[in-house]
Amino acid sequence: MPKISEERKTERREQILAGARRCFAENGYEGATVARLEREIGLSRGAIFNYFPSKEDLFVELAVRDSARMSELWVEHGLDAVVREVVELDPDWLSVYLELFRRVRNDTEFRRRIEERNEAVIPANRARIEEAQRNGEFRDDLEAKEIGTFVNLVLNGLALLRASDEELPSTELVLALLRDAIGPRAPRRRPSRTGA
Amino acid sequence: MPKISEERKTERREQILAGARRCFAENGYEGATVARLEREIGLSRGAIFNYFPSKEDLFVELAVRDSARMSELWVEHGLDAVVREVVELDPDWLSVYLELFRRVRNDTEFRRRIEERNEAVIPANRARIEEAQRNGEFRDDLEAKEIGTFVNLVLNGLALLRASDEELPSTELVLALLRDAIGPRAPRRRPSRTGA
Repeated sequence: MPKISEERKTERREQILAGARRCFAENGYEGATVARLEREIGLSRGAIFNYFPSKEDLFVELAVRDSARMSELWVEHGLDAVVREVVELDPDWLSVYLELFRRVRNDTEFRRRIEERNEAVIPANRARIEEAQRNGEFRDDLEAKEIGTFVNLVLNGLALLRASDEELPSTELVLALLRDAIGPRAPRRRPSRTGA
Repeated sequence: MPKISEERKTERREQILAGARRCFAENGYEGATVARLEREIGLSRGAIFNYFPSKEDLFVELAVRDSARMSELWVEHGLDAVVREVVELDPDWLSVYLELFRRVRNDTEFRRRIEERNEAVIPANRARIEEAQRNGEFRDDLEAKEIGTFVNLVLNGLALLRASDEELPSTELVLALLRDAIGPRAPRRRPSRTGA
């Protein structure tokens, strides 16, 4: 086997992941056969499985990258940017997640792999929420974790509607209602004049 | 074929639907083979398909009943009751919906059947929201439809997290934040003393 540079390896990994994402989105997880993966990626099964030993590994890597990207987006550009991103996600790709739901639930090992990698992004998100609470962007009468789980809920709902091609509420409406739910309690109560 | 009473027919339909729901939940939609449906329902395929001509018909009827039940619950007992119901739904049954997402998206006829039946419950829900706006339970600065789509979003998010066995935010937290988002704008601004 010819030796290839680290740079070339990285390029290959990216080529494989991009092709696998397209192939999953187009054919579904079950429908993404090895032959279709080869065609879409433009490499032989030997080359592909040299980087990712199984189809499951391909999916886990793609799923984990999605989580990491959303988390980075939130940390760097705020929650509005994440909401705007979710409503633009590819419904075909989202439906691959849904297709795998039952499997993730019933396959402990598969589940553990995804959760373990996803949990890595939690501390940065938690810290970002706490910062937003300190600077008055989010309400401070709840735990950062509570705000995080509620936001997660809304984002999951958006993704599900997006995957179903159902009519989405406008992004502005979602952002406004989300701010009403987790934004600072306004108008703030003025400090009591009696000093109590 | 012996003639059977209307009452007996209704009983049979219910027996078939209850068995089909259990069978789908346990085996997934694809995994619910005709043999398994027969076993779980306790009737032969001939008897079952006399009432529901296909597996798809069974699923559509179950899905439509779920929507109708949620809608009734909202209309009769309010939104809190719906939220409490969603967080208690059977994750195995919810994952059948997810399994069918891709199919519903790609199969126009399947999709039309579900949407058509679901749309039947919209007017009652819309009227309920408008009533809640009039009596001060919900904010009145948004269209009833906007409130409906946001609530739908939150309920979908809850169902998705429930299906994944992910940690749900507490029901009380969801209800409190939902009220902050769609409840009356409080404290209301007092009318200006200058009359401006």
